[in-house]
Amino acid sequence: MARVAPLSGFPEWSPAERVVENAVLDTIAEVFTLHGFANIQTRAVEPVARLGGDSDASKEIYVLSRLRAGEDRGEPSLGLHFDLTVPFARYVEERQATLAFPFRRFQMQKVWRGERPQEGRFREFYQADIDVVARDVLPAQAEADVAIVMARALDALRERVGVPRAVMRINNRRLVEGFYRGVGITDVAAALRAVDKLGKIGPDGVRAELAGIGVGERAADAVVRLASIQSEGAEFFDRALELWGEVDAQGEEALTLFEEGLRHVARLVEAVNTAVPGTARADLSIARGLDYYTGAVYETELVGHEDLGSVCSGGRYDSLVGGGGFPGVGMSIGVSRLVSRLVTQGIATASRGVPSAVLVAVVDEQTRPVSDAVADALRARGIPCEVSPTAAKFGKQIQFADRRGIPFVWFPGEGGDQVKDIRSGEQVDAHAASWEPPVADRRPTVLLGRGEPD
Amino acid sequence: MARVAPLSGFPEWSPAERVVENAVLDTIAEVFTLHGFANIQTRAVEPVARLGGDSDASKEIYVLSRLRAGEDRGEPSLGLHFDLTVPFARYVEERQATLAFPFRRFQMQKVWRGERPQEGRFREFYQADIDVVARDVLPAQAEADVAIVMARALDALRERVGVPRAVMRINNRRLVEGFYRGVGITDVAAALRAVDKLGKIGPDGVRAELAGIGVGERAADAVVRLASIQSEGAEFFDRALELWGEVDAQGEEALTLFEEGLRHVARLVEAVNTAVPGTARADLSIARGLDYYTGAVYETELVGHEDLGSVCSGGRYDSLVGGGGFPGVGMSIGVSRLVSRLVTQGIATASRGVPSAVLVAVVDEQTRPVSDAVADALRARGIPCEVSPTAAKFGKQIQFADRRGIPFVWFPGEGGDQVKDIRSGEQVDAHAASWEPPVADRRPTVLLGRGEPD
Repeated sequence: MARVAPLSGFPEWSPAERVVENAVLDTIAEVFTLHGFANIQTRAVEPVARLGGDSDASKEIYVLSRLRAGEDRGEPSLGLHFDLTVPFARYVEERQATLAFPFRRFQMQKVWRGERPQEGRFREFYQADIDVVARDVLPAQAEADVAIVMARALDALRERVGVPRAVMRINNRRLVEGFYRGVGITDVAAALRAVDKLGKIGPDGVRAELAGIGVGERAADAVVRLASIQSEGAEFFDRALELWGEVDAQGEEALTLFEEGLRHVARLVEAVNTAVPGTARADLSIARGLDYYTGAVYETELVGHEDLGSVCSGGRYDSLVGGGGFPGVGMSIGVSRLVSRLVTQGIATASRGVPSAVLVAVVDEQTRPVSDAVADALRARGIPCEVSPTAAKFGKQIQFADRRGIPFVWFPGEGGDQVKDIRSGEQVDAHAASWEPPVADRRPTVLLGRGEPD
Repeated sequence: MARVAPLSGFPEWSPAERVVENAVLDTIAEVFTLHGFANIQTRAVEPVARLGGDSDASKEIYVLSRLRAGEDRGEPSLGLHFDLTVPFARYVEERQATLAFPFRRFQMQKVWRGERPQEGRFREFYQADIDVVARDVLPAQAEADVAIVMARALDALRERVGVPRAVMRINNRRLVEGFYRGVGITDVAAALRAVDKLGKIGPDGVRAELAGIGVGERAADAVVRLASIQSEGAEFFDRALELWGEVDAQGEEALTLFEEGLRHVARLVEAVNTAVPGTARADLSIARGLDYYTGAVYETELVGHEDLGSVCSGGRYDSLVGGGGFPGVGMSIGVSRLVSRLVTQGIATASRGVPSAVLVAVVDEQTRPVSDAVADALRARGIPCEVSPTAAKFGKQIQFADRRGIPFVWFPGEGGDQVKDIRSGEQVDAHAASWEPPVADRRPTVLLGRGEPD
C-alpha cells in the first residue's frame, strides 16, 4: 500500500479521469472561443489587501510566506486567489490603456479556498469564467450574452460529456433592492446575505437572521414571500407585482426600480430560453453572497444533482474594476465540481487513460530501429503510439498493451507488417504509411453512462 | 494610468501574448501525446516535509497559512510545489497499485519559487514535463526516448513558433562519479554541486569551492579539465579516456563506472542526433544541482540565447519514488522562460488577440436577432465571431472591429448579406451558411519574426 495519503480537498485525477476533465475544459473553451472571448491567465497570487472584503470566500484565503524568511522586506503580503473575478478586475485596471473595450475574456484556472472540504467543495479547484467589461456603459445585451454563452457551454457539456441538464436561475439586484426598500428595509446588502442562506437555513432561519439585523416581522415575511416566487415563463412578473400590493410596499422610486428589475429578468429569461430552450427560469430567491453585484444575478443547478449546489454563477457589477467606470458582467463554471460528479458517479468515463492507439512490438533489440520507424510513420499522421519497452515474447507484449488499454499491437515483419486489434483478436496486413485506426480509437474519447466509479 | 503595478516575477501576458503561450503549450502537448505520454495534473501543494531537501529550489518554497488561523489543527504544513518532479513522484507512490508501468506521463502546470526575479527567472512559471517511471527496472532506451521526445518538441516549437535552435548537452552521473572516485574524491555530491556553478563562477571559482570541501589541488584540476570536454561527435570519448591516464586516475571499479558512463553518453548523443540531427552533444561539465540524479543528465540551451540558461533539463533517478523500486527519467521544459523570450523580443507575435474572425454588424436594435442568427450560423461551422455591441453607424462598427483586430465585418441586408475584409476594403456577397474566411484568418495564428517588443 501507498505510504502517502491524499490531501482532503485537493482532488487529483487518474490519467483516465484527466481525459474527462480535459474534454470538459476543451468543450467549454471552444464555446467561449466561438463567441469571441479571448483567453487570458492571471497570476495565482494577489496582494492580500486586494483579496479582502466581506465575502465568505475572502475569509478563507491562503496567505503565502517564504520558508527562508527575512528577505521579504518591502514586498506586499500575497495570497492565493479564491476566484478569477478579482484578479481579472485587477488585470483590466492594470491594462486599461491598451485593452479594447468592451473586453470579452475567458479564463480557466485553479483557485484556492481554505474552507472545510466536503463533497463537491474543494480547497483547490478549476473555474472557467467569462466576463464582458466595458468602459463607462455596458452594452444592454451583455447580461443576456453572457448567460446565453454559459447556457450553450453547459448544453455542449451535456452532449459531449454527459453533464446533466442545467437550470439557470435568474434574478436582478435592482428588483430586490426596489422591493426591500418598498417594505422599509434600509440595509439591503445585509438582508441579501440573510436571503442567500435560504437553501441552508430555511424560511424561519432567514426570518431570524432578518430580525437580527432589525428587520420587522411584516417586512421579513414580505422578503420570504418574494423569495418564493419563481417560474419558467413570465408568470413571476404578475405574481411579484401582486405581492407588492399585498404587502403594501411603498415608494415611487422603489417601485420603479422593482418594475425595471422585473422587466429585465423577464427579458433575460426569454433571451436565454430562445437560445437554449428550457434552460432559464426567473427565481426571485437568488441573492448571491457577494456585495458587488448590481444587476442580473445567476445561479445554475443540474437536474437531479441539486445537492451539488450551483455549478455556474455570476452577475453584473459596476464598481469592481478600478472603483468604477468599467461596468461588467461575468459568470463562472465550477469545473472541478462538475468533473468530480462525472467521474465519481461513472457518468463519463474515458475509453482509455493512455493516449497511444498502437503499441509497436519489438522483434529483437537489433531491429528496434525498425519498430521506431513504424511508430514515427504513424505519428506523422497524428496517430499516438509507443514502442514496446522490451523485446519479450509477442504474447507478453500483447499483455503489456492490454494492461495499458492500448487497442492495437503492430508487428513489423520481414515479409510485411501486421496489426492486431487485441479486443477482437482480428489481425490484418498493414502499412505504416497508410493504415488508419477507426476514428473512435485514434485518441482517448469520453464514453457516456458507462462504467462504475473507480 | 493604472493605479496597480505588476508584481515582479509573476508574469502575465496580454491576450495576443497568450495566443503565443497557448501555441507553445499546444505544440508541446501534441508531441508528448503522439509519443504515448498520458496527461495528468497534480495539486499545487505538497506537505512542506516532502518539499524539503537541499536543492536550491527547496529553499525558496512558498509556505501557505490560512488568513483565519487556528482551524488548521492536525493538518500538515503545506507549501506550493517548486517543480513537477517531486509531486509526480508522490503521485506515483500514491497510485502504484493502479498505474500500469512503465508509466509515461506529461504534465504542464505552473510552479512557484520565491527566488529573486530576473530576466528569464520567474517566481511563478509554467513547466512542461515528461517522465517515464518503471517498476524495478527502467527499460534501457528510456533515457534516450525522453531526450528524443524533448528534442522533437523543441524542434516543433522552432518550426511553429520560432523558438531558436536548441542544443541539448548530455552527461552521465556514473561517468562523473567514476572519474571523481578515480582522482580520490569521496564526497561526489558536494563536488558536483561545485561544478554545477561553473558557468556562474568560472574554473577558478570551482577550484576554490572544491578546496573548501577538502579536494586537493591536483584532483580539483582534474575535475575542471573533465568539465572542459565536450563534442558533437564521439571525440569526447577518447579525450576523456586520455585524461584518465594523464591525471593518473586509479581504481578498477571507478574506471568501469567511468567507461560505462562514457559509452552511455555516446549512445545517447547518437540516438538523439539520429532522431533530430544536430541537436545533442556530449558535455562533461553538465552536473545539475539536484542530488537525486543517478544516470543521464541533460541541459538545453538555445543558440544565440545562451543567457537564458537551460530551457529543458532533467535526468535519470533511481530513488525518487517511494525511496526506491521505481527508477525513472524525466525532463522539463521551462515554458514561461521560452514564452517570455519569444514575446519580449518579438520573435513570435499573434495575428490578433481576439478569437473573432468576424464582427457581425447590427443594422438597428430591432433586427439584432438577424445578426445573432448570422453569428450562430458561422459558429456552427467553427468560425469565431461576435455581434456588434451597438447599432452605431457602420463606419463606427468597422472602426470597432479594426480596433479589436477583427479582420471581417458582416453586413446583414434585406436583399442579401455582404462581408468586408477591412484590411483590403474588399466587400463581397456572402451567405452565413457557406462563407469561409481564408484558413489563416479563422483563428488567431502565430507569426514569426514580425513585430517589435510590445
